[in-house]
Amino acid sequence: MAELKNDRFLRALMRQPVDVTPVWMMRQAGRYLPEYRATRARAGSFMDLCKNPELACEVTLQPLARFPLDAAILFSDILTVPDAMGLGLYFAEGEGPRFERPVRSATDVEALGVPDPEEALGYVMEAVRVIRRELDGRVPLIGFAGSPWTLATYMVEGGSSKEFAQVKGMLYDRPDLLHRLLSTTADAVTLYLNAQIAAGAQAVMIFDTWGGILTPRDYRAFSLNYMARIVAGLQREHDGQRIPVILFTKNGGSWLEAMADTGADALGLDWTTDIGEARRRVGNRVALQGNMDPCLLYAGPDRIREEVATILEAYGPGPGHVFNLGHGIHQHVDPERAAAFIEAVHELSACMHG
Amino acid sequence: MAELKNDRFLRALMRQPVDVTPVWMMRQAGRYLPEYRATRARAGSFMDLCKNPELACEVTLQPLARFPLDAAILFSDILTVPDAMGLGLYFAEGEGPRFERPVRSATDVEALGVPDPEEALGYVMEAVRVIRRELDGRVPLIGFAGSPWTLATYMVEGGSSKEFAQVKGMLYDRPDLLHRLLSTTADAVTLYLNAQIAAGAQAVMIFDTWGGILTPRDYRAFSLNYMARIVAGLQREHDGQRIPVILFTKNGGSWLEAMADTGADALGLDWTTDIGEARRRVGNRVALQGNMDPCLLYAGPDRIREEVATILEAYGPGPGHVFNLGHGIHQHVDPERAAAFIEAVHELSACMHG
Repeated sequence: MAELKNDRFLRALMRQPVDVTPVWMMRQAGRYLPEYRATRARAGSFMDLCKNPELACEVTLQPLARFPLDAAILFSDILTVPDAMGLGLYFAEGEGPRFERPVRSATDVEALGVPDPEEALGYVMEAVRVIRRELDGRVPLIGFAGSPWTLATYMVEGGSSKEFAQVKGMLYDRPDLLHRLLSTTADAVTLYLNAQIAAGAQAVMIFDTWGGILTPRDYRAFSLNYMARIVAGLQREHDGQRIPVILFTKNGGSWLEAMADTGADALGLDWTTDIGEARRRVGNRVALQGNMDPCLLYAGPDRIREEVATILEAYGPGPGHVFNLGHGIHQHVDPERAAAFIEAVHELSACMHG
Repeated sequence: MAELKNDRFLRALMRQPVDVTPVWMMRQAGRYLPEYRATRARAGSFMDLCKNPELACEVTLQPLARFPLDAAILFSDILTVPDAMGLGLYFAEGEGPRFERPVRSATDVEALGVPDPEEALGYVMEAVRVIRRELDGRVPLIGFAGSPWTLATYMVEGGSSKEFAQVKGMLYDRPDLLHRLLSTTADAVTLYLNAQIAAGAQAVMIFDTWGGILTPRDYRAFSLNYMARIVAGLQREHDGQRIPVILFTKNGGSWLEAMADTGADALGLDWTTDIGEARRRVGNRVALQGNMDPCLLYAGPDRIREEVATILEAYGPGPGHVFNLGHGIHQHVDPERAAAFIEAVHELSACMHG
């Protein structure tokens, strides 16, 4: 493997000194980029794109060609895991992801197996290898997976949801069943992330998009508990390099202390928590990643710069901050605004370090 | 006016002793009740139902005929205010509320006026009067309005939204314009709630459904600030009775201390905050209303009872708790589950008082 030329992102995750604050954007390879839309049109469906390692590599690298980002993130989808578990993922036009066979009954839960990632998700591992080769050490590559609870919401509901009636019905009425589902899914995610690490992912992130819809008690029992099991089961070193782990629970700002207890290296933050306040709460136990509202990218470059400065000052001097948006970049954002954002982070953060 | 026979709800809001914890449900007059669906079918559209004081009274009273609820809430919609401001509210089938004339430009904002509630919203005041007459003192009647920020999201987006690109674009790029919009809307809401109080509302609640999508700083500047102005402008006494005010910001659990500073009597809580923790934070400055996950009503009666007990114990003994769901009751809930919930609150809370 080529030597890493820019290791700011990995250093920041491990709270080591950096020259400027590293920055990347959730969903940086996505629909706001015309070149992404072109590749997507060539690929066919969204899943065709995910399952084609060369095209997945192409879109992963597109934002890096435009912006001086400090990390690349594997182009894929969190729902590849339940798909590999046999649920039959498809994307209904304009309706988001759906599963042909949602998990509703005890029989459904018992039928779930833990897929061998190199077999059932070989296209992801191949994409990781192709991307690492093409990145050629420019920046590190982030692998990722959904949290078991977040995956369970889609697996039980059969797709996206607003009320989460099915999965919460199971949580409240058949917690035993849900725990079994989550346990199998946690095993699947652990193997999957370890396979990504073996294939070349240099850091991994667990996306808990829906942990924030739970009560504090249920968040611990049904979401955090399984993320902690995954963190404990991960290969934390590969090729002599430490592999940092980032946990991100959307709307999880009140539970940062408990999240830090999992042994993760870093926590993702959405914009509803002040990052300075968050830092005071977690102390020097973990790095923090975030946390600009993606809607700021609808504002002009001066306003973006001002917000970047506000967040940098709130975090304060010293290591341990990876700049990011608090959620994925929106599809209608002008890429020029993303450029202004990334430039502002690097320029304005220089004085926070060194 | 008939003397109030059950004043538990009002007493709890003012942190006075009660025999059992009072309970009502957000959206208790709604689609989960077959009798509501029947009245709605007779009325025509949703807005036809809102604008017909006799039918609005009929649906307001329906849940009281089924369950021993401790309060009635006016059947209406938060978007009646922007409708009265001239935006042209309509409900597209299966798509939720829309405005014919969204507020996007400086000209649009300047054109907004503060409607005279007895003129432009006379149907609401008439509904309040009819309901008070028909309630005949059984339980108090709650009036309500949307928070200026929450109303602004619909006014600027032209309806519901997932990304809030338009209103956040205005917030970040033209805060002056948004402040003007919010200021006019706050004046309109103040007059509207005072008119409801004059017509007979015995408590009022401000619904801030979308305050929780803001950064902590912007929540204060663009949402809480205007709710505080409304609280300060309300008639807090009518007919010799204190009129308590409840503030509810969905996903606002981290900002309770600041919300209590507004001078509101009570704060609504969704289920993502522990109510015992919340009580310790706000002390005896305000009462708390909440906070069971409405999805618990998909569980069996025993599980519902268990959750009610957990929340009662978390709040602890003493006054100042109004039991409620943390959000509106879902349309697919079996009314029998709602009955089990309400019964459990009254039965299990008796030992917390007296």
